[in-house]
Amino acid sequence: MKTYYNPTKKEWSSLCERPVIKSYNLEELTTQIFTEIQRKGDVAVRKYTSIFDGVVPDSLKLTEQEIALSAKLIPEELKQAIQLAKTNIEKFHISQKEAKTIIETTEGVYCWRESRAIENVGIYIPGGSAPLFSTVLMLAIPAQIAGCKNIVLCTPPDKNGKINDAILYAAQLTGIKDIYCIGGIQAIGAMTLGTESVPKTDKIFGPGNQYVTAAKQLALKYGVTIDIPAGPSELLIIADTSANPEYLAADLLSQAEHGSDSQVILLCTEESLAKATITEVNRQIQDLPRREIAGKALQNSKIIVFDDLESCFGLSNQYAPEHLIIACENAENYTDKIINVGSVFLGNLSCESAGDYASGTNHTLPTNGYAKNYSGVSLDSFIRKITFQKISEKGLQNIGPAIEIMAEAEQLQAHKNAVTIRLKDLYNV
Amino acid sequence: MKTYYNPTKKEWSSLCERPVIKSYNLEELTTQIFTEIQRKGDVAVRKYTSIFDGVVPDSLKLTEQEIALSAKLIPEELKQAIQLAKTNIEKFHISQKEAKTIIETTEGVYCWRESRAIENVGIYIPGGSAPLFSTVLMLAIPAQIAGCKNIVLCTPPDKNGKINDAILYAAQLTGIKDIYCIGGIQAIGAMTLGTESVPKTDKIFGPGNQYVTAAKQLALKYGVTIDIPAGPSELLIIADTSANPEYLAADLLSQAEHGSDSQVILLCTEESLAKATITEVNRQIQDLPRREIAGKALQNSKIIVFDDLESCFGLSNQYAPEHLIIACENAENYTDKIINVGSVFLGNLSCESAGDYASGTNHTLPTNGYAKNYSGVSLDSFIRKITFQKISEKGLQNIGPAIEIMAEAEQLQAHKNAVTIRLKDLYNV
Repeated sequence: MKTYYNPTKKEWSSLCERPVIKSYNLEELTTQIFTEIQRKGDVAVRKYTSIFDGVVPDSLKLTEQEIALSAKLIPEELKQAIQLAKTNIEKFHISQKEAKTIIETTEGVYCWRESRAIENVGIYIPGGSAPLFSTVLMLAIPAQIAGCKNIVLCTPPDKNGKINDAILYAAQLTGIKDIYCIGGIQAIGAMTLGTESVPKTDKIFGPGNQYVTAAKQLALKYGVTIDIPAGPSELLIIADTSANPEYLAADLLSQAEHGSDSQVILLCTEESLAKATITEVNRQIQDLPRREIAGKALQNSKIIVFDDLESCFGLSNQYAPEHLIIACENAENYTDKIINVGSVFLGNLSCESAGDYASGTNHTLPTNGYAKNYSGVSLDSFIRKITFQKISEKGLQNIGPAIEIMAEAEQLQAHKNAVTIRLKDLYNV
Repeated sequence: MKTYYNPTKKEWSSLCERPVIKSYNLEELTTQIFTEIQRKGDVAVRKYTSIFDGVVPDSLKLTEQEIALSAKLIPEELKQAIQLAKTNIEKFHISQKEAKTIIETTEGVYCWRESRAIENVGIYIPGGSAPLFSTVLMLAIPAQIAGCKNIVLCTPPDKNGKINDAILYAAQLTGIKDIYCIGGIQAIGAMTLGTESVPKTDKIFGPGNQYVTAAKQLALKYGVTIDIPAGPSELLIIADTSANPEYLAADLLSQAEHGSDSQVILLCTEESLAKATITEVNRQIQDLPRREIAGKALQNSKIIVFDDLESCFGLSNQYAPEHLIIACENAENYTDKIINVGSVFLGNLSCESAGDYASGTNHTLPTNGYAKNYSGVSLDSFIRKITFQKISEKGLQNIGPAIEIMAEAEQLQAHKNAVTIRLKDLYNV
């Protein structure tokens, strides 16, 4: 981790740059696989499962029995932990429901919004080194609260053609029934286009590698939407003298272990804190199973010492981190200074991993600066808000003439007529 | 308008198909212009303004004086109509603010959301045949309510290098100061990349032709987001015997006049109503200035007579129209049946043009079936909701062990450590 001292505002831009991610041109490959899925359905999905995962499961869809069995195969304490996380995530996402409020904008003109779940949603859970059952909770719980009618979950088989038990347990606990043993491009393609086995969906959620990311981008061209553009995980910490370097180091490492392209940044007001944190990082990293990955991520990472907290918040807003820890005394006093970020952790005890798993907030968040124009996943991601209006006689008399004038000025005579024809009847009664 | 009687569910899919839109491959052109704007800034913007609009304005940015002058040049009654519309749109969009609610998900674990405006937004208003000042209101008002710091408006010059006065009046009334006389690809490029004159934005809103649409798609690749994918306007009406064929015809025509690619559909339960409506359409269209456009749109349009209203709502949800009029007795009793739609108009007096101009709801809505996975523009479109969490000692003791277990099961040891190191201190006190 390189340390910078009081960089000038001119230097902030380069300090806020993300490590350049090797970008692969996968458009040809993804287009080819999508086209084949469109033509051949399950046959194509099986073919690419065999090519990419080296196995072809007996059935693409898991049976109820297979899912139920998983509940018996994971340790009781993990089950209880998952249940606790589910309870908190549920409470927080239920609180995001919007009550219907009818607004009388002018006497006799009533407008309101009603929420409707997106009917068909797809959840992708990667396989690979770590079984991300926590992401099942983060996506399936709000989908269920929203009331999505069809929730499809795809996740790749391991070398033996199996799916991780904790993933299946979390899926079962959250009421997901349609689980498919499909990964990568072919999973996103199947959920985009639909096959004999896999229903077509309207929105696809979930993380993934460069293949999944490219496939989700292609899905957009087919009228499907996605949650958030994908990117490497990030953490920025703003610390004052009240911070504990042991905690700071642990938090920085918890984000660095995600991937060698992760980025962690510490902004603080004390050189001694910066130095103590580096010492702690170097000590704690030794015992980590993923120390090699974390070590690589730390090469992209920075410590910046500013004279004042104001500059820390300024740079943080320019960087727009996915996660922000405010390791400051009375951290809640600074919330007004926070503009661009995915999720915020206030105080020395609010570690970022709490939000990854169990506090209740969602861990699917905007990375790579997208916190400037995207929110993280929430209940809102699974619904649409439809506007309604009801206009009474009095209401049309009140706003009708204005509509007629505006429509005429926009040279849209038929728009005007729709009002005129009604007003004529009202005044003739 | 072709009439269909009780089509079977199998036939619904083809009835729900949108007219095929001629798609232009503009990727090369848009990429070229964006690249040139990136390298040469205003020089490139001026070059393409000259090529596409045939004029080069003295200055790309309008002066305060030029904007203020417009207010004197439009008729008083139009000003008052615009003011009335503004008041209603404001009231409805202010009501969309979300109050901060702190949720204690577990004792000592506090989670909440706070809204933050997207700092830099761009609004595009097309030139062309109709001056869409109403769209200025629909985009600038929620942007101001959200508190967006920088709001940039681009609109193309006419043949004389001027911008329509009503557009400028609406912009001025809503407090927009940064107005640029730039249209098409070069406008979207300038707002995506920033130039010496035009600030870079993070999200771009507004309708446009195929060039603007292609440029907005390209903007996505530069990390900018957009409001909604663009498509031709649509109206679906569900009518029972209480409906007035004169009104139905006026509403169908008001949507048909938007463009020859617009689509209008009438679903009703009475053959006689269908016939009377066709007669009325044929009568009313005669007097329309845009009858040629409306006539072409009607060629894409359908009347479907069903035996029951249930089928009408079923087909409507499958079609997912931008606008839906429920011209039925006690229309509000049917709201629960409505799932996929942009905006709904209840009853015989709630004409669609009310929502286009002055009732208060937003007229920027999902078309082309996107109502299945997109909401229309609202205050939400201009903000992000950031999650916050604050965990107390008791809180970490309550959820910490679950986090440790889950992190370990996901093989993320450093995530676990961040909790362990804190819990150790708490229990040692």
